[in-house]
This record gives sequence, structure tokens and C-alpha cells, in this order.
Amino acid sequence: MSGEKKTTIAAEVEALAKRRGFFWPAAQLYNPVAGFWNYGPLGTAVKNNFVDMWRKWWVRDEGAYEIDTSDILPEIVWQASGHTEGFNDKQVMCKGKEKHRWRADILIEDTIKYEGRLEGKTTEELTDIIRKNKIKCPKCGAELGEVFVFNLMFNVNVGPTGETKCYLKPETTQSSVLDFPFIYRSQRAKLPLKIAQIGKSFRNEISPRQVFIRMREFWMAELQIFFNPANTEWPAYKSIKDFKVRILPANLRDTVEEPLDITVDSAIAEGYIPNKLIGYYLAKVQQFYEALGFDRKCLRFKELLPTERAHYSKVHWDFEIYTEDFGWVECVNNAWRSDYDLSRHAKFSKQSLSVFEDGMHILPNMYEPSFGIDRTIWMLMLHAYRNDGKRTWLALPPALAPYQVAIFPLVRREGMDEKAKKLCELLNKQLNIFYDEADSIGRRYARADEIGIPYCITVDGETLRSETVTLRDRDTTAQVRVAIDRLQEVIEKLLEKQLPFTKAGARIK
Amino acid sequence: MSGEKKTTIAAEVEALAKRRGFFWPAAQLYNPVAGFWNYGPLGTAVKNNFVDMWRKWWVRDEGAYEIDTSDILPEIVWQASGHTEGFNDKQVMCKGKEKHRWRADILIEDTIKYEGRLEGKTTEELTDIIRKNKIKCPKCGAELGEVFVFNLMFNVNVGPTGETKCYLKPETTQSSVLDFPFIYRSQRAKLPLKIAQIGKSFRNEISPRQVFIRMREFWMAELQIFFNPANTEWPAYKSIKDFKVRILPANLRDTVEEPLDITVDSAIAEGYIPNKLIGYYLAKVQQFYEALGFDRKCLRFKELLPTERAHYSKVHWDFEIYTEDFGWVECVNNAWRSDYDLSRHAKFSKQSLSVFEDGMHILPNMYEPSFGIDRTIWMLMLHAYRNDGKRTWLALPPALAPYQVAIFPLVRREGMDEKAKKLCELLNKQLNIFYDEADSIGRRYARADEIGIPYCITVDGETLRSETVTLRDRDTTAQVRVAIDRLQEVIEKLLEKQLPFTKAGARIK
Repeated sequence: MSGEKKTTIAAEVEALAKRRGFFWPAAQLYNPVAGFWNYGPLGTAVKNNFVDMWRKWWVRDEGAYEIDTSDILPEIVWQASGHTEGFNDKQVMCKGKEKHRWRADILIEDTIKYEGRLEGKTTEELTDIIRKNKIKCPKCGAELGEVFVFNLMFNVNVGPTGETKCYLKPETTQSSVLDFPFIYRSQRAKLPLKIAQIGKSFRNEISPRQVFIRMREFWMAELQIFFNPANTEWPAYKSIKDFKVRILPANLRDTVEEPLDITVDSAIAEGYIPNKLIGYYLAKVQQFYEALGFDRKCLRFKELLPTERAHYSKVHWDFEIYTEDFGWVECVNNAWRSDYDLSRHAKFSKQSLSVFEDGMHILPNMYEPSFGIDRTIWMLMLHAYRNDGKRTWLALPPALAPYQVAIFPLVRREGMDEKAKKLCELLNKQLNIFYDEADSIGRRYARADEIGIPYCITVDGETLRSETVTLRDRDTTAQVRVAIDRLQEVIEKLLEKQLPFTKAGARIK
Repeated sequence: MSGEKKTTIAAEVEALAKRRGFFWPAAQLYNPVAGFWNYGPLGTAVKNNFVDMWRKWWVRDEGAYEIDTSDILPEIVWQASGHTEGFNDKQVMCKGKEKHRWRADILIEDTIKYEGRLEGKTTEELTDIIRKNKIKCPKCGAELGEVFVFNLMFNVNVGPTGETKCYLKPETTQSSVLDFPFIYRSQRAKLPLKIAQIGKSFRNEISPRQVFIRMREFWMAELQIFFNPANTEWPAYKSIKDFKVRILPANLRDTVEEPLDITVDSAIAEGYIPNKLIGYYLAKVQQFYEALGFDRKCLRFKELLPTERAHYSKVHWDFEIYTEDFGWVECVNNAWRSDYDLSRHAKFSKQSLSVFEDGMHILPNMYEPSFGIDRTIWMLMLHAYRNDGKRTWLALPPALAPYQVAIFPLVRREGMDEKAKKLCELLNKQLNIFYDEADSIGRRYARADEIGIPYCITVDGETLRSETVTLRDRDTTAQVRVAIDRLQEVIEKLLEKQLPFTKAGARIK
């Protein structure tokens, strides 16, 4: 989109995604504005599957309260949260005629191979790096000015004369904080109280790029845990204490290459993770991404340095996924935000947001794992992409694939198409079924592989004789013959990995 | 919210909704901005249930392609669609010091009992009515100026200098139209092609009011059907041809009070409904709302007059629901938009948006049923509200209720609470379960009734002796005794209305 260097895989997957209907730029009929994307039918199916799975793990199993909140919020909310003052990019403008603008850190990274860390640098320090390295405007070659701050929120003026200044939310967190007292009261809740949200965020990024990695409008899924800071014991902790998390603690980032691979219990004993609550949620984030099909070697938690994290943040771990094209990509923020948000809104609204429990007034602390939905889907597709020179397939986990099963009549005659359509009716109660009768069976298999359909069923001449079909495995292309009356059960077991494919039916060839 | 007159029911339901956590104003910790609402935990559950049901009826069963699209779109999209020019309210400003603004039609309706129709009146005609009836500013009593037009879209400036003028989408339709050619191609589709969307829309309404009836940010669920205008035959038509729709055709609106109650077949024969495609979708909309639990007597389709509908619209039926407080409320727009949208985008993008089928280039027509999600939920709650003087309950259909079952231990000792928690684990795989152990059982029943939980299970002393529980029906308060090992089956049958409550177990009392 914006001139980034792409190696082959990301470019191939992006092309596949646009061609087959996973996603494409919004308003691509015109000259699209960078950073805005639409999910096509296949991408929407993947996203809906992801949301279902997220809800199961992070709402239902956690006993969280899910809320659904407004995208437009008045200015005072963002003054209280600190966003009007602090939610900035550091930018630099060229002195040429066209006054090109750049995000200072990305310009430096892209232009010179800067070795140090740019996050947390002041405007003066960044200006200094630009001067010392004689970086010029990449577009027109002109001198660059001083680095300055630029607020990333989109302003929206509400009311007939635009008299009510509002912003599109740049994060969903604040709505959970604002609604905390009302949820606590209306649900007769106690601490710890968990609030979940699936919603959009909007940021006026100066250089949107790398498909879903830097967008101006994007989907987030978040869990905010409000807890008594005097009690970070966590009953569910025992279920994950021996789970090995891959962590790169802040104080080791300069000395080790590979993340530690260490049980949560040991990580707490060594002081890398401050308490059981955070240990539990770090483990659960990694388990969730393993359940999404990611190889754990491509996953890590990177702890931010005090200079990198917000001043109110006590601990902040970026959960990252490695890809060949983009290196380590942050996909989940895991932040202990202290009582900062609640205390700021208490101050600005002049209301007490403490709760009264066990004879004490408590201002809860808040911890949040905050998931980038679009980034996760982009990482999923990049990791699922396979090309062995002969064929291309997406090895998506069945629960996330846009369709679980494809049904094909071998040819469109002798009643095979009717039989195949009947099978669709039989199976489409529980599963998303893809039906296709155009072109040769080989081309149809290729098309199904490319969009990640785990299993193909073919109705052939033998079907009409013996009430059996062929079943084909996407990842191996192996085929077996299965009786129609066993089909539903076999597919369910395959999808839940309770049956190896080779034992699903009589081997063919 | 904005000074409208409320009769008892809407005010009571709004108070209940806020107190129990169905919904509340966004940012209510501060002075909230009118027209922005959040769903609390219970409302989010109802909305999620509604969306699941909508997807089943309108995506899965229709074989539609669902997409998920950007809220911010560039100006050219809205120039092409006609929104920059035509998406206006007619407003009037007072000549007093504070220059109060009013929506002209609402001001006239609220001030004098105007008998005629105000939709479609020109600014001059409205000014004339204001002058003739000597209407003054309701706030300060000052004279009113001329009626003028005011664009309802929210402007968003994108890019570091705000150089890219965009708007928040005031309807989701345009994204389906813009993506039509890409879906047609990528999915190898044929006409008729159906595109579904669930998404937000944003409108700078001057007088948001009546809770979810006029909002500035709201959820829509839409189906766009792209079809060959030469072929409005519809295979699924036969399944609804004898279904009776309640319609108020445009040419009868002045002469009849009650809508006609007529089969789709007769309505087409009489010329009220122009073709089978539209007949099918009108019937399906009404069937959907009947399945949501609405009494059909409260439902009607009102056809718009040529002066009321957009110039490009060939036919437009408002699907309305009657409530005591607000009269007939439009909940679904059903519009045959001709080829207007596609032809405008073809013109502005200088691309052909025709498809080639059966040897012909066809510019498809588009028909859409477009559902207001929030309005529907508000209507659902108003219709479900019951108060017989002794108790209050929400008679929500089980599929939409925030929880399907409540589980209570009679007292919090003798192992009843542990037993009750075990029952939760048993049942929460398939159902949303509400657990409560605080206060007397009577108060817990009352709390469960008020939020519409269809069935309550109580674990009592007898449970520990005989492995049975009491099961209570929300609507009648009748109770039966059911064996735990039959519980799951009994509840499933009750929820699917396959079993009358009186036969669910041994009668109590």
C-alpha cells in the first residue's frame, strides 16, 4: 500500500486474499484511502469464527460481562484519559514545496539502519538523530524540520453547529472504565470484575502500511480485569502454573536473543512476572494463540522498558508473533494500568469510583489483555500459507476456515449434482459448506485448497452405486472412501482432531 | 432524554434497562451527549442473540455473502451516492440570542397538531406552515427564521493535515454496492447475488430522542439483493405465497385505518406488491418479526408515497411496529432502489459495473430490507414488559433473553450452593446461565423475572434427598419438580416449545 518492502510471502497472500475475497481496500472502486480495509465474504467468515472462539475463551469461560459501546465519545473523556494530551505520534515535515510529512521513528528506521531503540525518544532526540545522520525527505530530497507531536485521534463535531467536540475512540478500554461503576452496581458484582468488549478503534496513522499491521480503523477484542490490588492471588492460577510461557523480560532484552521458555511458576519465582493474576493471563494468551494453530516458536512476550511504557503502567508485555516479512509483530497488549484510568475519571467527573468491600473502600486496579483482531487474522493467513511448487493451500485450523467442508459432484449429470446438493442440506445445519460444480475436479480442489477448506467431499459414479463418497484432506491431498451414513460423524471427529485422516475411511489408491 | 412526553411504559422500561444493565447513555459518568448509547451486559447478550438469529435467517438461509466494512469512506463515495447533496434534515433557527435550532417537521408536529403529511415538503412549504401557525421557538419564544437544509453526515478529516475529506457512513448500503463487483468476481457468483452486512451507521441528528428511536450512532443489519430486473421470478416464492402480510398500500393510506391482511399471492394479483421477489422478502420480514415474538396485530408495512420516497426508489415499504408510547415506529426499510446506486458509482468511478450473463450485459437492480437493530431491541423490550400490579417481568422469547436459565440454591448451606454450582457446569455448555445465591428466593425470582429469564431452577433440601429440583416458569410462576438427569432434555424442549410447562415435571402445590 505505501511503498513498504515486501518479500514474497506477504505479497502472495495479499494477492490471494484480494483475488478470492478475504479482504480488499475499502472503496477500492475509487482511489482508496490508505489504512481502511473491508473484509470480503471469506474474511468475514474467518473473523466471525475468530470472534466466536474469542467469546468462548475470554467471555464465557472467564465469566466476563460483555458490553457494546459507542464509538464517538465527548472530549472530556479523552481529557481525563490523557489522550488529548498524550496520544501522539512524533512527526517531521520537510521544508520542500509540498511539505511532506513523516513519522519520525519510521523514517529513521527505513532510512538508516538505526541500531538503538526509538520508542520513548523525545522530539529533541529524534531531531538530533535526523540531523546527525543527514536524513532528507525521501520524496523530494528537501531538508527536514524539527520533530513535533501530532495527535492521532479523529475529531468529530456533533450537533447542528458542531458545538459538541467529540472524538472517535482510539481504544475501547475507556468505555469499560467509564461503565465499570454501572456494571458493578447493576450486576451486583464483586471484585475481581471482568469486562469484555469487541469493537472498533480509530487512529489517524500517518503511514498506514503492511496490510493489517498499521490501520486507521481496526477491530479490537479486549478484557479488562478490575481487581483489588491487595489481592492478586488467582484461583484459576493452578490450572496454568506449569505451562511454559515464552518471555523476554525487560532486563534481559539486551543480553539474550531467544526468549526464555519457562513455567509460569518459575517466572514468578525468578521475579520476571510480578504476580499470579498476570501469570495466569499471560499463559492464557499464549494458550489461546496455540489453540489458533500458531507454532509456539513464533510466539513471545516482550516486556517493555520503563521508558517505553506509559508512566501509569506498572507492567506491560507485548505479545508478538514472528513472520518472515515483518519480523516480530505486536498482536496483544498486556498491561497492568494501575488505578490510573479510574482515578482520572473520578477526578474529572468529581465522583467516587471506589467500591466498598470487606469493610474497605477500594479503588480497583485494572489489568488488560487487548487483542488486535485484524492483525491476528493477517498473521493467521501468513502462517497458514503453503506453496510446495505444485499447489497452494492455506493450512487454517478448521474452526477458523471460511468453510469447513466443500461438496462437489464429479460431473454435473447422472444425478451427481442432485445427490451432492442433498448432502449439502444434510451437513449445513452445523457446518459452513461450500458447493461448487464448475470446471474439472482438479481445479475445484485447487480452489478449495487456496481458501483453506479442510475437507472436500466428492460425489462420483460410485456414490450412486454404493452410497459412499470420496473425502479428501487439504493438507496431504490423501483421499478415503466413506459411507454417507457415517459422513457426519466422521467429519465431526476429523474437525475435532479425534480421528486421524488415514483412519477416516477406506484408503483410495 | 430530550424532553419528549413519555407515557408510563417506556419510562418504566427505560428505568429498568438502566438499573439492570440492558443499556445506558454512553459516557453517563459525565454529561452524556444525546443520541449515543452503550449496551450493558444484559443488552449486549440480547443484541448478540438477535444477531445470531438474524444471521441464521438472512445470511445462512438466504445463502448471502456477509461482508464487514469500513465506517470511514472518502467523500467521492458520498458524492456518487447523492448523500453530500441530498442527505439532509430541514431545520429552522430562532432569531433569539441563543439561536436555538429545530428540525422543522418535528417542531411543527410537536407544536400544533398538524393533520397533513410533512415528509416530502419543501423548505418553502415548511416555512409557510410555521408562519401561518405563528409557531415560535419553544425554548425562548423568539421568532423563527426560514427553514433550511442541513447535512446529517459526520465529517472526518484523514491524514496529518486532514487533507483527505471523509465521512462516517450514514448507511451501510453503499459498502455493499461498492463491493458488489469484487464479490461477484471473487466468489464466481451469478445473479441474483445477495450481500449481507451488520454494522454501524452515524447521523448527526438534531433531536435524538425516544431512546433507540432516533440515535446518532446505531447498528444496522442489511441484506442487499442484486438482481436482473428482467427476472423478478423467485423460486422461494412458493414457500410464502399463502402467507398473509399486513400492508397499507400507498393508494389506500387515505381511505383505510387498518392495514389489509392479505396473502402475498392476492397482494400481487391486486397490484399492491409489484413482483414475487418483493412479495417474498416482505413476507419474510414479517415472519422474522413474528418469530421474534411480536403479535402480528402490532406489525404493518406502510408503502411510501412517491413524494415521500427517494426519486430513484421504485417501491418503498416501511415495516413498522406499534407501541403505545410512540405509535407506529419504522424498524425495517424495504426499498427497491432500481439501478441507481450502481449506475452512479459506475459514472463516478468511470468503470462498468454491469455483469455479463446469458449473453447480455446487465446492470443489476438492487432491493434491500434494512433492519434497525437497536430499534428492534427497544421494541422487543417495550412489547415484552409486563406488570400485573404484583410483579414485573419481561416476556422475552427464550432465544433472545439475556440468560435462558437461572440457578439458585434455596439457601447457601447444607451443600445446596455446591450442588447448584455443579448444575451450572452441567448446563452452561449450551445455555447462558445466571447464578444467584443472595437474598431470599422470592427476591431472586423477582430479579430473574425482571430481566426476562424464562426458567429458574432451585436446588433445595429435597434435591439432596431425591436428585430433583424445582423448575419455575417466568410467565405463569408455576412450578414443577424435575429429576436432575432429565433436566437438560426438559429445558431444551421447553425452550424450543416442544413441551408445555405443565407437563415438564410433577406439579408442585
